[in-house]
Amino acid sequence: MLKGHQSWLFHRKPKLVSAAAVVGPFEGRGPLADDFDIIHGDSLLEQASWEKAERTMLEEAANVAIERAGITKEQVHFYVGGDLLNQITSSGYAARTLTIPYLGVFGACSTSMESLALASYMVATGGAKHALAATSSHNSSAEKQFRYPTEYGSQKPPSAQYTVTGAGAAVVAEAGSGPSIASATIGRVVDMGIKDPFNMGAAMAPAAVDTITAHFRDLQVGPDHYDLIVTGDLAQVGHSIAEELLDKHGVPIHKTRFKDCGMMIYDYEKQMVQAGGSGCACSAVVTYGHLLKKLRKGELRRILVVATGALHSPVAMQQGESIPGIAHAVALEAESEEERTGKD
Amino acid sequence: MLKGHQSWLFHRKPKLVSAAAVVGPFEGRGPLADDFDIIHGDSLLEQASWEKAERTMLEEAANVAIERAGITKEQVHFYVGGDLLNQITSSGYAARTLTIPYLGVFGACSTSMESLALASYMVATGGAKHALAATSSHNSSAEKQFRYPTEYGSQKPPSAQYTVTGAGAAVVAEAGSGPSIASATIGRVVDMGIKDPFNMGAAMAPAAVDTITAHFRDLQVGPDHYDLIVTGDLAQVGHSIAEELLDKHGVPIHKTRFKDCGMMIYDYEKQMVQAGGSGCACSAVVTYGHLLKKLRKGELRRILVVATGALHSPVAMQQGESIPGIAHAVALEAESEEERTGKD
Repeated sequence: MLKGHQSWLFHRKPKLVSAAAVVGPFEGRGPLADDFDIIHGDSLLEQASWEKAERTMLEEAANVAIERAGITKEQVHFYVGGDLLNQITSSGYAARTLTIPYLGVFGACSTSMESLALASYMVATGGAKHALAATSSHNSSAEKQFRYPTEYGSQKPPSAQYTVTGAGAAVVAEAGSGPSIASATIGRVVDMGIKDPFNMGAAMAPAAVDTITAHFRDLQVGPDHYDLIVTGDLAQVGHSIAEELLDKHGVPIHKTRFKDCGMMIYDYEKQMVQAGGSGCACSAVVTYGHLLKKLRKGELRRILVVATGALHSPVAMQQGESIPGIAHAVALEAESEEERTGKD
Repeated sequence: MLKGHQSWLFHRKPKLVSAAAVVGPFEGRGPLADDFDIIHGDSLLEQASWEKAERTMLEEAANVAIERAGITKEQVHFYVGGDLLNQITSSGYAARTLTIPYLGVFGACSTSMESLALASYMVATGGAKHALAATSSHNSSAEKQFRYPTEYGSQKPPSAQYTVTGAGAAVVAEAGSGPSIASATIGRVVDMGIKDPFNMGAAMAPAAVDTITAHFRDLQVGPDHYDLIVTGDLAQVGHSIAEELLDKHGVPIHKTRFKDCGMMIYDYEKQMVQAGGSGCACSAVVTYGHLLKKLRKGELRRILVVATGALHSPVAMQQGESIPGIAHAVALEAESEEERTGKD
């Protein structure tokens, strides 16, 4: 199972049998709108707070994914989840509603792939028949907690990112129809000394590169092994830094095969999102909504999703600390590919 | 591996080969002082903030545990850790220092056993040769974040608990000398409607009982299977509630075999701790310091550590929510017991 120093190669590849992507109105006006399952017209979802709205989306995504898997929530052995809010509140309260045994995880925006990696690992090793991986973020709850409440109207520099309002969930099963989960690489914390909370991309880019190069080394594959390597939410600033660093490390990834969920989810010409999207939901809804559809259609055969997280703590910042980054990667394969090669 | 609905039974039992418990001065004046590895004379540890002091203890515990395992940190495949601070800051920054691939987890004070359960699971299933489980809490950083800064001198009701200042770490390995990890039960979130942030014991007790009864059901054992069942930090109020609930569920545990780390760590007559201790470090230092020594000496043969967590969010509280509880359990067996029965 352990492959190299920090990766898992799944011999019995678990299946991502179902998924759901729920988003807010702003994401629903972006270029990937057609790939989302629920688009809310109001980002408050008729709830009394942004936090309750976020939790509602997370519960919706989880319920839709479970229903699509053709199972009941009682058949889901574990819910692995986390989010950006202090005490990963959205996930904890969603777990209360779902009543599924709960493993809370936190890796900032890398939580999407941390939870999928762990859920997949458990299913691959016989620790669960079905496991749910789910995460969420909400622009207004995140801004309020990490920077300034949106209502203050504070201006942002071009390096800032726009936290995605949404939730993504996936059900992983021992068998069934859907893409396979082939491997996962767990990242190290990397900190290059960035202290600007409006430049998360720069804080996360070195971690993304560290995990991508570790994945290549551990799995003994090169960039060409994948049709697409997609980072979570580096956005424009972080993505360019990652490209440069990969060149320096001698593992350049061709531009057509290296993308970022934070650059895919919004329309830069029409939507004011500074450098691009961010948040746990960014990589979650792009992967579970958009990329999964492409894998199912066979338009993509093998992809590596590298969810990136800035372990940004406002308190640590006030105490003079820089922002550490982390990235976790999960490799997904289209069903036909697995069948074609006959690997088990 | 999966046993029943929410438990893992380890057929290849991993070994808890080394551990370390680091505490502050107040814990060093309690009845378990002799069992701790490092007792700091000053709770600030000559750091510039309570948060930095907490992180320093966590790093110390991790380093001592790794050194005692006779390995280097490069040989540790994964660090599974979390703590009480927003963004689990102590763990994230400790992971930066340790440079070990990092899986951040959060279950409030249940984090101690959530991390040990996951680290054990990975080692038992070939996903890691060595894994580190570590957690921390600090009285002053926790009070400041969840209630009022200590400096305010606010009074507390008798149901309040005293957050333990300390850090505990354990190295889990495929083989070696030390107690075995036999099984683990992952808890569900249970919420009985408690809204008092000064009564965490009552919020957590139903979750502890839910996990204990699930463990008995899944593993098909009764309370007598264990020499000791120890909850994390229910303290006096929560412990009595748990006793009552277990009676009601028809699985009473004899008083001599049912204890609580929060009631063991301080001297109620000499130390003003209201209902007792709490915090991620409470169950971690009592388990990794005190109980492990008893397992090594053969004074205990089989124990179940049920770490309890109140998923308390100050923001959710302000929005009218109650406090959900969760508990994760890990079963430990003395080395001689495993050898005697010859199980593999």
